[in-house]
Amino acid sequence: MTTETISIGIAGATGYAGQELIRLAARHPGVTVTHAMASGATDTPRALPGFGGIWDGEVTPLSIDRLAEDTQAVFMTLPDEVAAEVGPELVARGVRVFDLAGTFRLRDREQRRHWYPATPDLDVPAVYGLPEFARDALPSARLVACPGCYPTAALLALRPLADAGLIEGDVIVDAKSGISGAGKAPSERTHFSERHGNVAAYGVLGHRHGVEIEQELGRQVTFTPHFVPLNRGILETIYARTGSGVTDAAIADTFAAAYAEAPFVRITGDALPEIKHVAHTNFCDVGWRIDTASSRLVLVACLDNLVKGAAGQALQNLNLAFGLDEATGLR
Amino acid sequence: MTTETISIGIAGATGYAGQELIRLAARHPGVTVTHAMASGATDTPRALPGFGGIWDGEVTPLSIDRLAEDTQAVFMTLPDEVAAEVGPELVARGVRVFDLAGTFRLRDREQRRHWYPATPDLDVPAVYGLPEFARDALPSARLVACPGCYPTAALLALRPLADAGLIEGDVIVDAKSGISGAGKAPSERTHFSERHGNVAAYGVLGHRHGVEIEQELGRQVTFTPHFVPLNRGILETIYARTGSGVTDAAIADTFAAAYAEAPFVRITGDALPEIKHVAHTNFCDVGWRIDTASSRLVLVACLDNLVKGAAGQALQNLNLAFGLDEATGLR
Amino acid sequence: MTTETISIGIAGATGYAGQELIRLAARHPGVTVTHAMASGATDTPRALPGFGGIWDGEVTPLSIDRLAEDTQAVFMTLPDEVAAEVGPELVARGVRVFDLAGTFRLRDREQRRHWYPATPDLDVPAVYGLPEFARDALPSARLVACPGCYPTAALLALRPLADAGLIEGDVIVDAKSGISGAGKAPSERTHFSERHGNVAAYGVLGHRHGVEIEQELGRQVTFTPHFVPLNRGILETIYARTGSGVTDAAIADTFAAAYAEAPFVRITGDALPEIKHVAHTNFCDVGWRIDTASSRLVLVACLDNLVKGAAGQALQNLNLAFGLDEATGLR
Amino acid sequence: MTTETISIGIAGATGYAGQELIRLAARHPGVTVTHAMASGATDTPRALPGFGGIWDGEVTPLSIDRLAEDTQAVFMTLPDEVAAEVGPELVARGVRVFDLAGTFRLRDREQRRHWYPATPDLDVPAVYGLPEFARDALPSARLVACPGCYPTAALLALRPLADAGLIEGDVIVDAKSGISGAGKAPSERTHFSERHGNVAAYGVLGHRHGVEIEQELGRQVTFTPHFVPLNRGILETIYARTGSGVTDAAIADTFAAAYAEAPFVRITGDALPEIKHVAHTNFCDVGWRIDTASSRLVLVACLDNLVKGAAGQALQNLNLAFGLDEATGLR
Repeated sequence: MTTETISIGIAGATGYAGQELIRLAARHPGVTVTHAMASGATDTPRALPGFGGIWDGEVTPLSIDRLAEDTQAVFMTLPDEVAAEVGPELVARGVRVFDLAGTFRLRDREQRRHWYPATPDLDVPAVYGLPEFARDALPSARLVACPGCYPTAALLALRPLADAGLIEGDVIVDAKSGISGAGKAPSERTHFSERHGNVAAYGVLGHRHGVEIEQELGRQVTFTPHFVPLNRGILETIYARTGSGVTDAAIADTFAAAYAEAPFVRITGDALPEIKHVAHTNFCDVGWRIDTASSRLVLVACLDNLVKGAAGQALQNLNLAFGLDEATGLR
Repeated sequence: MTTETISIGIAGATGYAGQELIRLAARHPGVTVTHAMASGATDTPRALPGFGGIWDGEVTPLSIDRLAEDTQAVFMTLPDEVAAEVGPELVARGVRVFDLAGTFRLRDREQRRHWYPATPDLDVPAVYGLPEFARDALPSARLVACPGCYPTAALLALRPLADAGLIEGDVIVDAKSGISGAGKAPSERTHFSERHGNVAAYGVLGHRHGVEIEQELGRQVTFTPHFVPLNRGILETIYARTGSGVTDAAIADTFAAAYAEAPFVRITGDALPEIKHVAHTNFCDVGWRIDTASSRLVLVACLDNLVKGAAGQALQNLNLAFGLDEATGLR
Repeated sequence: MTTETISIGIAGATGYAGQELIRLAARHPGVTVTHAMASGATDTPRALPGFGGIWDGEVTPLSIDRLAEDTQAVFMTLPDEVAAEVGPELVARGVRVFDLAGTFRLRDREQRRHWYPATPDLDVPAVYGLPEFARDALPSARLVACPGCYPTAALLALRPLADAGLIEGDVIVDAKSGISGAGKAPSERTHFSERHGNVAAYGVLGHRHGVEIEQELGRQVTFTPHFVPLNRGILETIYARTGSGVTDAAIADTFAAAYAEAPFVRITGDALPEIKHVAHTNFCDVGWRIDTASSRLVLVACLDNLVKGAAGQALQNLNLAFGLDEATGLR
Repeated sequence: MTTETISIGIAGATGYAGQELIRLAARHPGVTVTHAMASGATDTPRALPGFGGIWDGEVTPLSIDRLAEDTQAVFMTLPDEVAAEVGPELVARGVRVFDLAGTFRLRDREQRRHWYPATPDLDVPAVYGLPEFARDALPSARLVACPGCYPTAALLALRPLADAGLIEGDVIVDAKSGISGAGKAPSERTHFSERHGNVAAYGVLGHRHGVEIEQELGRQVTFTPHFVPLNRGILETIYARTGSGVTDAAIADTFAAAYAEAPFVRITGDALPEIKHVAHTNFCDVGWRIDTASSRLVLVACLDNLVKGAAGQALQNLNLAFGLDEATGLR
């Protein structure tokens, strides 16, 4: 049997998510990295340090024309205003686009105006690509808005319970994130000496991932991200109230049903997840504890922000979009 | 003016809190470390590695008699059942005792039976030594139960607001702790390779510090501690609801009034605290954000678990108990 | 074409090297993990935490009989005295053995008596399995002594130069290692709070890996390992003297010739290697700087101690021993 | 007794060494921080985050006039070209200057031209302020060039042995440094995600601290610094050859004699130093191992780069320069 691989492009290949995409795509048997491009049109072509023997290509300047001519699918990790131009243009020229930044995630224009002020007026229909809940929509999607790293963990933990009516009222998502989530541009807040031995909350009561979780969950969310001194991984501790009479078994059954066919969601029950078990994998692990007397439910979810929270999930979306096995290249 | 220093003993001097006590006491102008003892009666006397030029004494075997004969005050960081024997005996012999473990903190016998099964039947009256709220009781206290590291941060953030009636209902305390809080005994959970690059929740819906916070606060608390990969420091993110109409200014005024005379509580307002600013100090920093539309209040409190959460706070209690300036030796 | 996979066993599967072996072997297309066994005969069978979806087997008690009956090759990460019994027995029963501990590495009995006192009297002929220099010997090897993590990096950097006569006299190997190299057993020296923010030399002028390097290099070596606060990875800074007139180009040419066919040695020239580029890979990166005026040569070599320094290299040896492509399952 | 404190200024107060100076000076009983200034004349005055209750002043714009008028001593942590202007001007106006940067350290103009190209033509006589070897010169010094962090550890370990003729030939200094040594300006090499889990050599065979050690030691030095993933602290492993017949006892005696009166050098013998014992202190710990058969000597020295390697040592120099007890404010 002859297998033709899917020709892909990566726009924004030098950041951490872009590099992880190259690393994963290079060993994905169903794709070929035809172009890995910088986020600017004038960047100098160059090899990626440390990629010898893994991927020996060069990162070239951004070119919509070359992407449109040579690729079937493009992954974008670009600044908002660049993505807003490149994405629709590629779609118009027949390329399927998987956006890893936030530009296309929020459906409400007022929310976009507030949280993505560079790109409020998009009207390209995008599929919100949380693959476990988008399997039906992905095969025909032209533009896939891959979820944020924080929303991915929160939604995988909360959506089945919310859909089943097991939780009531608002929820609190307290997230602890490694520093690679802040990207590759040096700054005071990503300076080693500022983060080592340190923990800090940021974006308290005002982070756009909170709005994204609210959009997908349809209920009020208090979201607090924190930087903790590690590189890769997010752990979220989620506080909710169940309806009265909801049992531990009901939670377990709901998760089991929701993720029976999901290769990358591992329900750990009361053996609560830890980042070390998901780092460098495409898994999202979800566990919980419940106090039935007070209806207090505490969920813990974790994932690797660069894999299931970014590059791995984008490839999982591509697999589903192109009819491959969902797990291809991601084990 | 002649100043006589207070002769102190440290029972349990080889653990992290005990070592920090020696380090602080060695430069405290009002105390002399007369005895630093191990937690067992048969330990071999030995110097502490790295203490040359800081404190050149030896840690000797535990001896109630020698403590009773030679010291005015003893700090205990001992196993529960040992503390339950040593503490009352020393008090009976006229020594003032500052306990840094948990044995004497819970007032309710049923709770003690559950959380400190080795020592349920104590009936020595102890002062709960959160110094900012125990200034009046300390001068006459014979036995001071120094608060846990987690409760210290939570109570300093919550008590003024609770006392002023500004918050309603239950609260959630999500704590991120450095690993020194787990003590000096090697174990799988404190093994470097298990904690590096990792975050994990523990004691979910069942940690005795949650009960301690509830005791002091008089309301329901959901408490979740986490290990994060750093050595010293705790940061707590606390979720509460205010009464309707409670403003940011009301919160600020309440804190300002509560801590006007407190040298070690720094109210940072909306510049949220970070562990790096309190590490190796006796400060507890408290900040917050409020969303008045939803009455959602998020507090952030942090401290160094070995200083304000243990050794520093114990010395602060001693200062107040013996009539010294509260900050002596702790700047 | 029908491919039958090689049936392998792992004896000592619960340590860090053993777990890494399972992880790598699980996705190696040419092998099947038939048995993963603990290092003791009485351990309780159990799943490995975090391995769901990666390898869903159970670690069972150690059994020479079952290994001998069911497997073609066994990887051993066992205590010396156990390895000394299990290894020869398996070889005698026709199983090919790849030992990852040190028992079979030293050829000199006096040295073994000193450094491996539990196992001085072995007389099973073992191939020293540094694959880049053992390609010819591996196909017929019955017992392969896989090199230590420290010697692997040192030898890959030094052997081509020594063989070509470019360096003179003794060498100094100053090694910086992540803590996973110390294994999985909790101890004071692997306690998180002892290692975080800390660097310490150990085994100075008396570490058995120094002897191992000397054996393979045939010259005097001063070897100093250090623990640095990270989990995976070793970087070695190596100090040597070149003969007079040796140029940078001569070094470069020698490396290029030595490793022209080596898929896992990357010569980086004066772009000196860093651990981040080799972590979680089977690469060993080698770079150098030379001061021709003083004939001073500084080499830098690094690798992941659990992959190229242990599990990956063992699989690389298996690939060569069984006639597979050297890189199978290791990209 | 009335004690007047010394009025000091800090020029370059916002960097890590500058902040540490403020922290130490604030509790030094013999000095008053009259001015803490930024490194530029146009910086906006501002408080230092986290310094509330420690030092409540503001960092003001750099002003030579105000320093000259109001202070008796100035500590400089300034860019080379600024230091070259400010230092001599202050000296000319009667202020004693302690420079923590490198500008004034090298005595040879050719070396300065190469390593400090912005400031080759200085001719202000400076005392090289390694206090353990500059006690006699400091009381009359007008300009003190405080040693670099790396040279401080290397020289404290090597100078007594070199002076006593116990070592022969060149030496190798392999240094492992925390990241705070790279300063406060964000850059790719100080980016958290680049350094976490990573070790890298830099400045190999070409770092100006190597030249500085050579100047003070009078022999050839191969110096290799490395970044290791921690914040504060340097550990140096030093390789030398002793003359034949030099014994362990001879080394011990030489150190004992050299540092009998030195409060901040701790000779640890064969209990090799570790960074954790010196972090946040002004100690430099030195230990060693010797193989008399091969005359190989391995020394290990460590210190906190921001204290004994910078701010603490500068204050130690001030103490000696102004006739205070050497250890004032530094215990």
